[in-house]
Amino acid sequence: MTETVTGFTVHDIRFPTSEQLDGSDAMNPDPDYSAAYVVLRTSAGGEGHGFCFTIGRGNEVMAAAIEALRPHVVGRPAPRTAADLAELSTALTHDSQLRWLGPEKGVMHMAAGAVINAAWDLAATGAGLPVWEFLAGMTPEELVSLVDFRHLTDALTPDEALALLRAAEPGRAERAARLRAGGYPAYTTSPGWLGYSDTKLVTLARQAVADGFRQIKLKVGADPDDDVRRLRLARAAVGDDIRIALDANQRWDVPEALRRLADFAPYAPHWIEEPTSPDDILGHAAVRAGQSVRVATGEHAANRVVFKQLLQAEAVDYVQIDAARVAGVGENLAILLLAAKFGVPVCPHAGGVGLCELVQHLAMFDYVAVSGSQEDRVIEYVDHLHEHFADPVVVTGGRYRAPTAPGFSARMLPASLAAHRYPDGSVWAARTGASGPRKENGS
Amino acid sequence: MTETVTGFTVHDIRFPTSEQLDGSDAMNPDPDYSAAYVVLRTSAGGEGHGFCFTIGRGNEVMAAAIEALRPHVVGRPAPRTAADLAELSTALTHDSQLRWLGPEKGVMHMAAGAVINAAWDLAATGAGLPVWEFLAGMTPEELVSLVDFRHLTDALTPDEALALLRAAEPGRAERAARLRAGGYPAYTTSPGWLGYSDTKLVTLARQAVADGFRQIKLKVGADPDDDVRRLRLARAAVGDDIRIALDANQRWDVPEALRRLADFAPYAPHWIEEPTSPDDILGHAAVRAGQSVRVATGEHAANRVVFKQLLQAEAVDYVQIDAARVAGVGENLAILLLAAKFGVPVCPHAGGVGLCELVQHLAMFDYVAVSGSQEDRVIEYVDHLHEHFADPVVVTGGRYRAPTAPGFSARMLPASLAAHRYPDGSVWAARTGASGPRKENGS
Repeated sequence: MTETVTGFTVHDIRFPTSEQLDGSDAMNPDPDYSAAYVVLRTSAGGEGHGFCFTIGRGNEVMAAAIEALRPHVVGRPAPRTAADLAELSTALTHDSQLRWLGPEKGVMHMAAGAVINAAWDLAATGAGLPVWEFLAGMTPEELVSLVDFRHLTDALTPDEALALLRAAEPGRAERAARLRAGGYPAYTTSPGWLGYSDTKLVTLARQAVADGFRQIKLKVGADPDDDVRRLRLARAAVGDDIRIALDANQRWDVPEALRRLADFAPYAPHWIEEPTSPDDILGHAAVRAGQSVRVATGEHAANRVVFKQLLQAEAVDYVQIDAARVAGVGENLAILLLAAKFGVPVCPHAGGVGLCELVQHLAMFDYVAVSGSQEDRVIEYVDHLHEHFADPVVVTGGRYRAPTAPGFSARMLPASLAAHRYPDGSVWAARTGASGPRKENGS
Repeated sequence: MTETVTGFTVHDIRFPTSEQLDGSDAMNPDPDYSAAYVVLRTSAGGEGHGFCFTIGRGNEVMAAAIEALRPHVVGRPAPRTAADLAELSTALTHDSQLRWLGPEKGVMHMAAGAVINAAWDLAATGAGLPVWEFLAGMTPEELVSLVDFRHLTDALTPDEALALLRAAEPGRAERAARLRAGGYPAYTTSPGWLGYSDTKLVTLARQAVADGFRQIKLKVGADPDDDVRRLRLARAAVGDDIRIALDANQRWDVPEALRRLADFAPYAPHWIEEPTSPDDILGHAAVRAGQSVRVATGEHAANRVVFKQLLQAEAVDYVQIDAARVAGVGENLAILLLAAKFGVPVCPHAGGVGLCELVQHLAMFDYVAVSGSQEDRVIEYVDHLHEHFADPVVVTGGRYRAPTAPGFSARMLPASLAAHRYPDGSVWAARTGASGPRKENGS
């Protein structure tokens, strides 16, 4: 009997992080880190977990969008192979009516990503491999079959992608061994949230260096004088050998970005992240061309077409993929291939809840099978909320250690799911007075 | 006592249009034209109606997104002035947590647009004016205050916008009079849906010319030979003096667009609409630069930042605003001002359900108070579903006639709302077997 997907359960999970100003930045002053979380179950007892990340309100809209994808999933043969996963991805992103709600952007696209990533968790778990190894064990042809090349072929054709993957094939085993032994470089954003005091900033920056990180990141984009003071304090705390990245979280227009970056120059920031609107390809290009700080962006880039243009326009020095904003593994593979084609390093966005857990797999796969390099590459690390995951990231000596457990490291602990369910989990019921019967949203 | 918003009711309204292949194109073969519809009510008995347009599945996700905006609206003083409307617009698009779900794109952004447009319907109705006149009666300063200039100032500053509006001020009364007398040119897409037979295409194309239209539009992007044959038949049917626009609905990559457009050249198409991804600014620019057919796009452009770049990159010959994709009147005003700054004509997208009703107001306001011209400008017209509206568009002699009833022409008839409510309205209950008590989603 064919194994089919029989279960599709959606959870609205929220953490009251705004109470500590963890994660506060100039655009997002009060985030409650949240996940619209989906669990697939198969007739043979298999499970796959996936989620999109949000910052609180509207997480119920994401949950509704995931729910809208149920008919494409339940009853389908359990996805196990590259072909299965490609087919599912196409079904979710090319639904002839749902596509109108993006197309390929925002709520509906992130929902597709959550379900696709859950299917990857299911398939890799079934194969007994962490997702990075599951991916790195696929042939170049299989990998190319996972990519939706629509609207990409002026920059990257399937043949070019195949050639890139074949060129990287001989060194795969050696790099995988190196990864298992030495991990992958991380940088930390934990010192730099806008809501933190100067003292906390300096203490955490020093601690980051002591912990082995070679790069930290500060949030900027609110008060200009505060930004410069915080950067000066951080530079004094960590010395000249540590990279300090800045993140403006989209706060500036192009002219202001150019003015503000000039003020930071004496303190030699490493990159400026999201200096302006994530949709503004030409704006990023103008910022990059108009001053000397390197430009990084991508956590809010809606899809592969936006990344394609950021590369075509020479708008970025670093491509920041996010595991949960685009349509899952397949679309991120497209972006990794585009970055490789244009020779731009990928430095993933992480943090939030579970984003570190997911994206480490993609960066490690990139190292093993696509770019073949860790040079000038780092994965963001934020030390929040990992305790809620069954297979949390391990970051020691400033490096992510390669996951060994099967799957996508995506699974939250059952007790964490139960306690943080909005609005009736114990964490929220205590805050909002919500109570009443536990409502199941799923089958 | 201050008049406040007390009611906020959301309806999931769908029309089974896929049964006739009305609206069928290469990307959207089977649309069920739908509206996620919101009604605001005030303590003084005022009403405002607004909606986003979708093509069926997922309309419930849009409804959930509108619902997420309720706390920003209910309890607020009833919006009556430019200042009130600007403040509401900011509250809806800058919610510090909901913004993450876009930002400013897709489901959450369209939901904001529906609520903002409902507020405009409320305010204009209260003022006893159709929206186009209500807008055209505002001072340049008031109009500028309605625009969110964030991420625009590298292309358009508030001072530049003010100068454009002041320059157009002297002719307002004369143009409004001309509009009331002569209307605004329309073109029709009714002949050109992909699902129609050649015979139906030719009959409807001839009928369009007989009805006074000087431009028709055909859908392309499916089978190449079919596209050329349909264009040839249409050209033969309408003669050389009628413009024939083509609409590829995003089906092509850049190289294919260039190849396909060469095949159409003998039949002199007027413009090619959405030749590729709506996110692909550089792709549109490459298509425009690489062949001779004019390029039009915008119905799926996510926000003002995308339009800004389409203009900066000289990617379009025509800007196609959509009344219900971006964040309502204020963001469309930003786009009209950008187009005026760059000297590119605005030819609105319409069709669907209610899009003609809404967007005519924006085009007429553009004529009276922004661009000051009808030259080389047309509003799309599709003859579907107008019978469900209380103040339907009037198109005679190939021209939209200026609405005179107060408001945004946005209100569906109560009987149409009741019959088309999904899944329990009579139209759907008969098809799906859904039944049971009428569920109210609102207050």
